[in-house]
Amino acid sequence: MKSNLLSNIFNPADLRELNEAQLPQVAQELRQFIIDIVSVKEGHLGASLGVIELTIALHYVFNTPEDLLVWDVGHQAYGHKILTERRENFHTNRQIGGISGFPKRSESIYDTFGVGHSSTSISAALGMAIASKLKGETSKQHIAVIGDASIASGMAFEGLNHAGVTDANILVILNDNAIGIDPSVGALKKYLTAVKNGKNPKQNNIIKSLNFDYSGPIDGHDIPTLIKELNRLKKIKGPKFLHIVTTKGKGLQQAEENQVVYHAPGKFDASTGEIHLKSDENLPPKYQDVFGLTILDLAKKNEKIIGITPAMPSGSSLKFMMDEIPERAFDVGIAEQHAVTLAAGMATQGMLVYCNIYSTFLQRAYDQVVHDVALQNLPVIFCLDRAGLVGEDGATHHGVFDIAYLRAIPNMIIYAPLNEIALQNILYTAQLGLDHPIAIRYPRGRGVLPNWLAEHFGNYETVKIGQSKCLKKGTQTAVLSTGTIGKNVTQAIAELANRDAVGHYDFPFIKPLDTHTLKEIFSDYKHIITIEDGVINGGFGSAVLEFAAVNNFTNKVTILGVPDTFIEHGTVAQLQQLCKIDVKSLVNLFSNH
Amino acid sequence: MKSNLLSNIFNPADLRELNEAQLPQVAQELRQFIIDIVSVKEGHLGASLGVIELTIALHYVFNTPEDLLVWDVGHQAYGHKILTERRENFHTNRQIGGISGFPKRSESIYDTFGVGHSSTSISAALGMAIASKLKGETSKQHIAVIGDASIASGMAFEGLNHAGVTDANILVILNDNAIGIDPSVGALKKYLTAVKNGKNPKQNNIIKSLNFDYSGPIDGHDIPTLIKELNRLKKIKGPKFLHIVTTKGKGLQQAEENQVVYHAPGKFDASTGEIHLKSDENLPPKYQDVFGLTILDLAKKNEKIIGITPAMPSGSSLKFMMDEIPERAFDVGIAEQHAVTLAAGMATQGMLVYCNIYSTFLQRAYDQVVHDVALQNLPVIFCLDRAGLVGEDGATHHGVFDIAYLRAIPNMIIYAPLNEIALQNILYTAQLGLDHPIAIRYPRGRGVLPNWLAEHFGNYETVKIGQSKCLKKGTQTAVLSTGTIGKNVTQAIAELANRDAVGHYDFPFIKPLDTHTLKEIFSDYKHIITIEDGVINGGFGSAVLEFAAVNNFTNKVTILGVPDTFIEHGTVAQLQQLCKIDVKSLVNLFSNH
Repeated sequence: MKSNLLSNIFNPADLRELNEAQLPQVAQELRQFIIDIVSVKEGHLGASLGVIELTIALHYVFNTPEDLLVWDVGHQAYGHKILTERRENFHTNRQIGGISGFPKRSESIYDTFGVGHSSTSISAALGMAIASKLKGETSKQHIAVIGDASIASGMAFEGLNHAGVTDANILVILNDNAIGIDPSVGALKKYLTAVKNGKNPKQNNIIKSLNFDYSGPIDGHDIPTLIKELNRLKKIKGPKFLHIVTTKGKGLQQAEENQVVYHAPGKFDASTGEIHLKSDENLPPKYQDVFGLTILDLAKKNEKIIGITPAMPSGSSLKFMMDEIPERAFDVGIAEQHAVTLAAGMATQGMLVYCNIYSTFLQRAYDQVVHDVALQNLPVIFCLDRAGLVGEDGATHHGVFDIAYLRAIPNMIIYAPLNEIALQNILYTAQLGLDHPIAIRYPRGRGVLPNWLAEHFGNYETVKIGQSKCLKKGTQTAVLSTGTIGKNVTQAIAELANRDAVGHYDFPFIKPLDTHTLKEIFSDYKHIITIEDGVINGGFGSAVLEFAAVNNFTNKVTILGVPDTFIEHGTVAQLQQLCKIDVKSLVNLFSNH
Repeated sequence: MKSNLLSNIFNPADLRELNEAQLPQVAQELRQFIIDIVSVKEGHLGASLGVIELTIALHYVFNTPEDLLVWDVGHQAYGHKILTERRENFHTNRQIGGISGFPKRSESIYDTFGVGHSSTSISAALGMAIASKLKGETSKQHIAVIGDASIASGMAFEGLNHAGVTDANILVILNDNAIGIDPSVGALKKYLTAVKNGKNPKQNNIIKSLNFDYSGPIDGHDIPTLIKELNRLKKIKGPKFLHIVTTKGKGLQQAEENQVVYHAPGKFDASTGEIHLKSDENLPPKYQDVFGLTILDLAKKNEKIIGITPAMPSGSSLKFMMDEIPERAFDVGIAEQHAVTLAAGMATQGMLVYCNIYSTFLQRAYDQVVHDVALQNLPVIFCLDRAGLVGEDGATHHGVFDIAYLRAIPNMIIYAPLNEIALQNILYTAQLGLDHPIAIRYPRGRGVLPNWLAEHFGNYETVKIGQSKCLKKGTQTAVLSTGTIGKNVTQAIAELANRDAVGHYDFPFIKPLDTHTLKEIFSDYKHIITIEDGVINGGFGSAVLEFAAVNNFTNKVTILGVPDTFIEHGTVAQLQQLCKIDVKSLVNLFSNH
């Protein structure tokens, strides 16, 4: 039996002590280490399995952390983390207080740039390379590793376009596996596939046209080839580009064969690869499925309905519509800016466009929402999945800014459904023809109604724009909640000794506010509490304060929500506790009034 | 003497009545018409002069408004406006109540998509083309006209990448004149120049790699050639790309020779082209020059200072530093996303990066500010020029959302200087090393201190982070202003009969707020008025309300700022009046308290 090599590797300096012939064994052990832990602790699997050899080769050839290595997105960085001083902590991955699921500067000197959102690596590495040059550190290497889905996003092109006219010492490695979370799309993907198949002469390729020293494509699972090529590139100055071909999920048969599912498979059997399926009978539906099933149902009846997702057909459940009505459901790739303006263009021609973008990723298209949609008052229907605290993906992925950044935009309607029924009904109402754009924000995960599909799905009711609802009257304090966090309020009130004192109002419309009901509430109650799963600064509570100021109300108002700090990873329940918007905190607060 | 053809053209149908041989005369008349009016009324000149022939050819060949024509950015659309029912109103261009300086849907059926910000045209036209296909309108044409500076921006690439894998009936016309407002930059520009010089075989070009039917480059001032080629392309289905070469400012010698100045030259002599220079002796400096001179001065003394502008070296006055210290001052092209993350990358290596972006264009990089800068708490220094109401450029360009969208982001410092001295001092303070990113927002146009350059420039004082200043004590009402709008407050108070009643406080720090002084103010004054030149929703006033709620103050608070509607074009003074933040409105308000 061979000795275990990985257990003696604390950091890349240890790796570099090995001879090249030992590296395939390290690859095997590293792959198994990841499988063993992710199978139990969950996390992102396929991406890291696909770059095991690349990870080893990079740390073997380059002098990390002196040489600066930037991983794009970061799903693929588990191997990197394990080889860079975090093997022993890797079992805490994505847990509260544990290491992050993404590279993170504050976690390790080897994590040169925090990631999570895609396509930032070229710009970041170029910035580092220019800085090194100015500091006279001429032998320093700067490497960006980016996938073929991420390089198709606009900002990656911007980075390439700039890098190509510099003499900065940057190496861009395209990890081409033809898939992001879902399979890659677009003309560039088609082109890269042709290159891989030998159908495009290397001499005239796009990357060379942008002034890069292009090499490849080479096999990204062949360690000797990788090491040879990286050593060669290390000696070349200026912008360089290496095209490697890998298989996502490499080394675990099921993960290779079912790459979408094994992107983040949940718990599975480490030896067989079988996923431990949780029965979802009697569980409420995922909000994404409420969206996916409802838009499909509506689109069957209304030919003007179009669905758009930037690279999240599975995550958004738009895939239901893509499977059945492909001509009206579009995956445009990681291209949020394009997705929004494409939707605007369609809307000018009378189409009813549901543009489904995770809340955190709509930040990528803020200007397009302002300039192309809202300014023209086009009735695009934004469906913001993963709004609020998302849990284990952490600080890069929480969708907590949307209320604040959207509320500033004229013409926008902003709606946060209380539950599955409210979500399906606003999706229904939106296609009846609003005169404004609308943003519908709903969270990651499951709803509250196990019987939604059987008993409610398809029983649409029209939502009256701007209307709130009294869920429970009270005598002293009115709690105004927006969105699914209202569930916590209902539960908290149920636990109160003096529950008569506290009223509860559902304000799904953050904009326009139900000023009629607000006037009644401010007149009837002494104390107002607002609660939202978004940042307090400029959010729903802030809107209520603005209402009170304009209307000369001087009631005490308490605003609950996400405080002015970046919230790290953990379960949603843990993070709600941190923000004091969990049931227990609410019970305490309500009891003291 | 020839009869005047232009005066008989009301819309493109009239143009199409002419025979092709008459079109050069139309071009001449149209060019002169634009020169005559812009020379007196001001506006954007060079871009429109450069596409006179293209504009005529497009409306001659295509069946506008049935066929849908999208102009990118829109600076170049004056000829289009004049040929499409707005010849007689063209003298009202950019004036309050007059026509917009940009294409605008609400203004004309020929303006298919509102523009102002760059690089949206491909996505918008593709959206229209897909919609047409779904509606069975198979012969409908969809044309995007985009410049070489704009096509290098990321979202244009996203549009091309999607369009290339559709069978949508879209024609992208690249108007290649090698200049945006300033000369184009980047690897793509270099590549396009090589193509124009015959150095790249057409068969293997980037655009063809993205699956477009590429033709060109052709002379964009040759009407017969344009018409022939457009007629040919009209018959080809699917995504097509025509590369034309034009000269910005074509037909006015000075404008051709000095393209940056004649982009928007102000008033000039229509016959000689000479610009009517206004003497700026005794005028206060432009805020952009306070930035440009100060960063140059600071950078001479501090080698870690870097300047970045996305395509606005002239507009931001970063050109002063680019001329003297080119190795540390970067024009990255129209690439706001890249600019911000590049800055973040540099900041990780200890550089002090001043990233100068117009407030309205930072909307393009919102996610990068959140995810790449603030989340990592990197001390990037954002200099937001053109913050607040910008005047004649109108709704697409007002920098009124920045306070609200930045205030939501943890770690950000937000500063709005009262005047030139405050701006230079915060620029100085920022390079002493803040532990946070900072956004410094200042307006378009001139300051208030004619002697700034002679008497204050270079006399730096350190600004204490988070500190406000009492400009005048009062007895009843405290006015809290942020930024240069404070000038209006000072003037208004001076005009009051009972000026003792009103105090005035300068709150340059929107974040962090000076809570110490706020507590005093809320204790000492009955009524608080906040004023800002940004949107009320979620802005500075909203922050003050949040402070009051947390601290249980129940004073009456009045919030002044930009209301929840898009503000059109006009002079800044006219628009301030509209928002009731002009001196007269303030005098009225203060008098009634």
